[in-house]
Amino acid sequence: VEAFTASVHFDARLYREDIAGSRAHARMLARQGIISQAECDAITAGLDAIEAEIEAGTFQFRPELEDVHMNIEAALVERIGDAGKKLHTARSRNDQVALDLRLYLRRRCDEIAGHLLDLQRALVRQAEANLGRIMPGYTHLQRAQPVLISHHLLAYVEMFERDRGRITDCRRRLNQSPLGAAALAGTGLPIDRHAVAAELGFDGVTANSMDSVADRDFALEFLASCAIIQVHLSRLAEELVLWASTEFGFIELADAYCTGSSIMPQKKNPDIPELIRGKSGRVIGNLVSLLTTVKGLPLTYNRDLQEDKEPVFDSADTVAASLAITAELLDHLRFNHKRIEAAVTAGFMTATDLADYLVGKGIPFREAHGVVGRAVAHCLERGCDLADLSLAELQRFSPVIEEDVFAVLTPAGSANSRISTGGTGLEAVREALAATRQRLDACTR
Amino acid sequence: VEAFTASVHFDARLYREDIAGSRAHARMLARQGIISQAECDAITAGLDAIEAEIEAGTFQFRPELEDVHMNIEAALVERIGDAGKKLHTARSRNDQVALDLRLYLRRRCDEIAGHLLDLQRALVRQAEANLGRIMPGYTHLQRAQPVLISHHLLAYVEMFERDRGRITDCRRRLNQSPLGAAALAGTGLPIDRHAVAAELGFDGVTANSMDSVADRDFALEFLASCAIIQVHLSRLAEELVLWASTEFGFIELADAYCTGSSIMPQKKNPDIPELIRGKSGRVIGNLVSLLTTVKGLPLTYNRDLQEDKEPVFDSADTVAASLAITAELLDHLRFNHKRIEAAVTAGFMTATDLADYLVGKGIPFREAHGVVGRAVAHCLERGCDLADLSLAELQRFSPVIEEDVFAVLTPAGSANSRISTGGTGLEAVREALAATRQRLDACTR
Amino acid sequence: VEAFTASVHFDARLYREDIAGSRAHARMLARQGIISQAECDAITAGLDAIEAEIEAGTFQFRPELEDVHMNIEAALVERIGDAGKKLHTARSRNDQVALDLRLYLRRRCDEIAGHLLDLQRALVRQAEANLGRIMPGYTHLQRAQPVLISHHLLAYVEMFERDRGRITDCRRRLNQSPLGAAALAGTGLPIDRHAVAAELGFDGVTANSMDSVADRDFALEFLASCAIIQVHLSRLAEELVLWASTEFGFIELADAYCTGSSIMPQKKNPDIPELIRGKSGRVIGNLVSLLTTVKGLPLTYNRDLQEDKEPVFDSADTVAASLAITAELLDHLRFNHKRIEAAVTAGFMTATDLADYLVGKGIPFREAHGVVGRAVAHCLERGCDLADLSLAELQRFSPVIEEDVFAVLTPAGSANSRISTGGTGLEAVREALAATRQRLDACTR
Amino acid sequence: VEAFTASVHFDARLYREDIAGSRAHARMLARQGIISQAECDAITAGLDAIEAEIEAGTFQFRPELEDVHMNIEAALVERIGDAGKKLHTARSRNDQVALDLRLYLRRRCDEIAGHLLDLQRALVRQAEANLGRIMPGYTHLQRAQPVLISHHLLAYVEMFERDRGRITDCRRRLNQSPLGAAALAGTGLPIDRHAVAAELGFDGVTANSMDSVADRDFALEFLASCAIIQVHLSRLAEELVLWASTEFGFIELADAYCTGSSIMPQKKNPDIPELIRGKSGRVIGNLVSLLTTVKGLPLTYNRDLQEDKEPVFDSADTVAASLAITAELLDHLRFNHKRIEAAVTAGFMTATDLADYLVGKGIPFREAHGVVGRAVAHCLERGCDLADLSLAELQRFSPVIEEDVFAVLTPAGSANSRISTGGTGLEAVREALAATRQRLDACTR
Repeated sequence: VEAFTASVHFDARLYREDIAGSRAHARMLARQGIISQAECDAITAGLDAIEAEIEAGTFQFRPELEDVHMNIEAALVERIGDAGKKLHTARSRNDQVALDLRLYLRRRCDEIAGHLLDLQRALVRQAEANLGRIMPGYTHLQRAQPVLISHHLLAYVEMFERDRGRITDCRRRLNQSPLGAAALAGTGLPIDRHAVAAELGFDGVTANSMDSVADRDFALEFLASCAIIQVHLSRLAEELVLWASTEFGFIELADAYCTGSSIMPQKKNPDIPELIRGKSGRVIGNLVSLLTTVKGLPLTYNRDLQEDKEPVFDSADTVAASLAITAELLDHLRFNHKRIEAAVTAGFMTATDLADYLVGKGIPFREAHGVVGRAVAHCLERGCDLADLSLAELQRFSPVIEEDVFAVLTPAGSANSRISTGGTGLEAVREALAATRQRLDACTR
Repeated sequence: VEAFTASVHFDARLYREDIAGSRAHARMLARQGIISQAECDAITAGLDAIEAEIEAGTFQFRPELEDVHMNIEAALVERIGDAGKKLHTARSRNDQVALDLRLYLRRRCDEIAGHLLDLQRALVRQAEANLGRIMPGYTHLQRAQPVLISHHLLAYVEMFERDRGRITDCRRRLNQSPLGAAALAGTGLPIDRHAVAAELGFDGVTANSMDSVADRDFALEFLASCAIIQVHLSRLAEELVLWASTEFGFIELADAYCTGSSIMPQKKNPDIPELIRGKSGRVIGNLVSLLTTVKGLPLTYNRDLQEDKEPVFDSADTVAASLAITAELLDHLRFNHKRIEAAVTAGFMTATDLADYLVGKGIPFREAHGVVGRAVAHCLERGCDLADLSLAELQRFSPVIEEDVFAVLTPAGSANSRISTGGTGLEAVREALAATRQRLDACTR
Repeated sequence: VEAFTASVHFDARLYREDIAGSRAHARMLARQGIISQAECDAITAGLDAIEAEIEAGTFQFRPELEDVHMNIEAALVERIGDAGKKLHTARSRNDQVALDLRLYLRRRCDEIAGHLLDLQRALVRQAEANLGRIMPGYTHLQRAQPVLISHHLLAYVEMFERDRGRITDCRRRLNQSPLGAAALAGTGLPIDRHAVAAELGFDGVTANSMDSVADRDFALEFLASCAIIQVHLSRLAEELVLWASTEFGFIELADAYCTGSSIMPQKKNPDIPELIRGKSGRVIGNLVSLLTTVKGLPLTYNRDLQEDKEPVFDSADTVAASLAITAELLDHLRFNHKRIEAAVTAGFMTATDLADYLVGKGIPFREAHGVVGRAVAHCLERGCDLADLSLAELQRFSPVIEEDVFAVLTPAGSANSRISTGGTGLEAVREALAATRQRLDACTR
Repeated sequence: VEAFTASVHFDARLYREDIAGSRAHARMLARQGIISQAECDAITAGLDAIEAEIEAGTFQFRPELEDVHMNIEAALVERIGDAGKKLHTARSRNDQVALDLRLYLRRRCDEIAGHLLDLQRALVRQAEANLGRIMPGYTHLQRAQPVLISHHLLAYVEMFERDRGRITDCRRRLNQSPLGAAALAGTGLPIDRHAVAAELGFDGVTANSMDSVADRDFALEFLASCAIIQVHLSRLAEELVLWASTEFGFIELADAYCTGSSIMPQKKNPDIPELIRGKSGRVIGNLVSLLTTVKGLPLTYNRDLQEDKEPVFDSADTVAASLAITAELLDHLRFNHKRIEAAVTAGFMTATDLADYLVGKGIPFREAHGVVGRAVAHCLERGCDLADLSLAELQRFSPVIEEDVFAVLTPAGSANSRISTGGTGLEAVREALAATRQRLDACTR
């Protein structure tokens, strides 16, 4: 039974939050005259000592005391006697655990937001370093149109920007102190919830004591935000795996991020991106886990809620590590421009440009498509690309075609012609890059 | 193959968004001189007529045209000829479908936020109607402390308030126009993305064309918000099912929301809450579905993404209907105060109050617990409750107890003594109720 | 990077399987003349010593050696030199890890099947102990018809019987040796896969080397079977929580399985059932996790698959512990027959019996319902139950009613009349109980 | 309310099962003397007529009658009067709906098993047609060792073989008739459950009435089996998408299974495999949906269970269609042997073979790796492959190398040398293919 119900083997991770919360609580109790200043001093000194012991690794957590809260309280009473017993006045494990988890998640939200920022910066560095370089843009994993490598990388910067927004919203929403909800109904003692909240850096206090101890939607929101981040990472990882294959050959990962084969020194397995992609499973699974656990629970606290912590810890760890290592990986990744350039000059990727060119000359869109289709079919027969046709040959498909057509038939011509806001044209990308750089520089980490 | 790939049987629901987007796109094309004003007029008139037909139910969607976009475009060309073919200039199905889904979700976000508000108001109405009434507060489904019915109901108001915040954040984040991303790379035609965005009520345009057509994180965020809402609803539903049981007997649901039994006229099955609770499964499943689909997809558009719409439609429908019907249900629910009062006077639910009382008299918290435990054990033996003991008897357990103890030993005394912010005391609840009422009144629907 | 990719902190749990597999592999290599007998002897002695060290807790696993396989191999080479280097001949980590996981799961399948059996037996013991006792049977958590407590308990025995079948099917399907698949393509060395398989207790060898190292459907099947088991447990747990509430009051859980309250000695929180119910979340989450991870992976081994072990370990541990503790809990649970009997005599639960009685007298089913409805309405007005009406009064609702009607209007009369196979009648239950007892007794554990 | 609770818009799909069940029930009632033969005849004739109407599309399902069961019963009473009212004797909607769903799933299990078989046969046809052809075998999406195309395809045959086993086990386990469980407790009427079961093709009757109406684990098992199938399909789909890319260029999909681009006639989007891969999301989501719905439900029937049908229908439809279209796709797929051969001759994929060769000459495994690593590094410098080195050059790396080494240094030599059971050697594959062909031929469809 003890082994089944104890949680200290995982919730010991909350010790810092637990002690910070207790310190603030004790100070408030003293200010409100509920305990004496001497008692408060004994408590905070005791807590300081316990925290130091835990950090030094000399504190002995005991499973028979069930959880981190009881372990610390018991150690306090052992250390300072009766005053220690007064610490739990006007609070309950129910609001204490809700407090600790909120404090913990707030810290992890900040950490993950920081990792997101680091990763965005790494992407921007690569985008800057490769500015002007062109690669195939894909739909359906088929080569579709030439794009700037920088543009491709900036697509991910946008995804992680929204991720940062979600984590920030989550942090804002959870940053309300539940302490003072007590077991479920509040307390009759003259506590000052606002003071505790302020000391702990909360934006305010929760408005309803039953909600405070019953709900974990803040943890669900955190887990959902993590799941979306890891899915974004899984897409980047998939691309890295593809690009590192012999068939694509677009990038070379640094040795440190691969396992090699002792007998095939040229072979580099992209283990890190594979693991990151694979770990999307656990982060989604963690979300499902807590959603399912909370489903159908009556108010207020039910022991089922003890299951809230492990998925939260695991998703936070996984996402933080995956973000950090992806940023590192990107900084040590080399684009193989020779292979990329070869890829971008084959495959009629400028066909849409020819169609757009015709539209610009007044041909209706759907008709322009027909013209280009016939020209491409002709090239396929001849074994050449569109840019290899002469003006005269091109004009056989449409008389409106003029000398200026060649400006859009090369990969660079094609890509750079896409000057619409957010498009892949060099000017558009340069602007986007500058704006992004500025935006990220404004963020402090 | 056609049956397997066609989506018009579900994406026809996007017709309104598709037509609105096309109208705005056509007007911009004309303003930019890409098509003529006459062509634009023909297009918008044609779209108006098609929309009217669809709304009248006379439009024939054809699966061989695959999706709603091609169905409408084909009908337009049939109707107005060549001008119709020009509508698709400078856009692609990839940015068109992203646009439609964002417009659609924006509308559903507003709708769900409205339903959340309605439900909060219904909860507030019941909280107001039952102000002062006391019921058992539970932890572990065990009676723990007396609370106000209103306080219990306001706990849900808080949950739905955060849900409203999440849906609002989701709406804000998705309200960027992707139109102009074209297939993936933007376009070389002189379009004005900002103008289209403004006409369609967007806050701005997306910053990267590849991201615009590749990502669906806005749909994931919507699905996650819906999942949390439905989990909240499942908890309220669970409580309604419990309360409607013979064993609890706390409420009576209106006949319209139950199925009866022809042979047991007194029996009322709480079908609606059961269905709402059960439907948490599908709303969580929908979230898993899209998370899994997007996992590991390389940029940009892959046909896998066609799977984005059905979960989104289903979750939006389910959550909207569940919220609406829960609000109705609450308005037609009667609390059975006789049963509730009987429940609240048994079970030593004021034991914590006695402990708090002792703490107020200077007894350390953990010791006070021991005193009360002995008093309760004594009552159990005698078959009475704490309030039934005389002062002298009580003083046998602790000499600090005085006459004023009886003020906290009744359910009302207990509940109303919990005056801490967010607590269940009548004054605290009255304030919370007033603040909530004011906050909700300030929201327009 | 090392911290991110290392798995030895969790896959060390496979040491026993890893060593058993290596031993069998070495013996086969020797028999086939690929290594010498002396080398084989050195290897098996070395492995024995390493296993002993691990079991004694003196073996030092090193994260820089990544996983359990490399840790053991490195220790072997350190210990016995060159011969150790030959152990890995004709195998690869890819087939080795597949082998270890299959061996491990086979063991856990047997263990879980055993726990299922124990739980079934505990249910049967309670069913036997309470044979003849009647309780309310519920639909929609509304009292519907009287049933035997034993019958209710036997419903769970059936669920766990199918669970046992699923786990057994899973075990049978996975019991094929993948060793010899090598990295992915098999080997040219003259190995004997069948001999290794036989030594390790497999039913045969896998038929395709690429499938052998690429697929984890056996782990998925295991996780799915676990999820269904835990969902079944969550239903039993929900009932225990309900029954332990003051409102139901049907059971008393033993103190060891509850947390009490120091101030409310009568209060017992059903922590164990709550945790079991809550843990359904993690077991479902683990299944989702691996399904998502495997989705979309090309053949053969990808590092994503390293994510297969933690969900498998966690689900096996959770399900095994939940089953074991539920069996214990049931053995120490007391039914509160006074409360149950009071519950069963109220609520017109014999109304269906009266209807069946009328049908037996030739009244069409749907009409009989009308008759009973009117009779019950009459009782509601008078404040009595059906059994309290006189024959004359009953005959006013239908002239076909005779004296024998009273035999079905009492809870016992009602329940015991349901003699259909699988029904709740005492005779039917006695038979079912005997058959179940016999079936379970025939299983050895 | 009606719209929220009605299910006839989806459960109408069960009409055939519902009518078959009613027919068998009526005949049993007549045989047992519970209704007259004339009534039975009227009922079965009425049901025949209703079935014909439904199949002709002229039957009007009415949502106000809620579900398929009530619609058919109401139509029957309308048509044949009083006798129709007797059909529901000794049964309840609770056992009726359980019966219908089991009958339905049994049919879909058979159908899916058939589709699995068809797909296996299509894979075998391609394996036979390409026997002897060699392609790169991958780990980590890196070229690792040459394998036979047939061997790669047979890996999937094995996966689908286990899938077929799972579906068959599921069918066997669910093939027990629940009819006669009535509402939850069985019935007192002298029914013959075994006769009904036999008539409907069941293997027996369920053993406990409460379990019969309360549990849906058979649906969960079906959904889990479907999820694993679709995950298998997603892997094959991923490979098809990769192979169809310009970078791989291994296959050409038939036009019918792709969407083209009007302007890039050479471009073929692999829409079908993408959709199949994407649909793994919904099939996993459906499983999560029902697992979550059933979690924590007390016995017996709760309205939540109405949510069982939509996920079951959707997964059955999705998996059946995905299997069928994948089989078709494979029959119309062309391997591009020129590209594949080019891929297989580059990349040192025979390095392991050289290592195995050395081991065969007595070099310890880990040392052999070192030798090969040095040889490969030498080749990399010289820009050649291992097979391009002369014997003398090779001997510089190890004196044990002899002329016969060249037999394993070519792709074919390498692949065909892997003669271990289940390996990729031509002989091993030829045997595996013959055995598979025989096994599948023995299955009737």
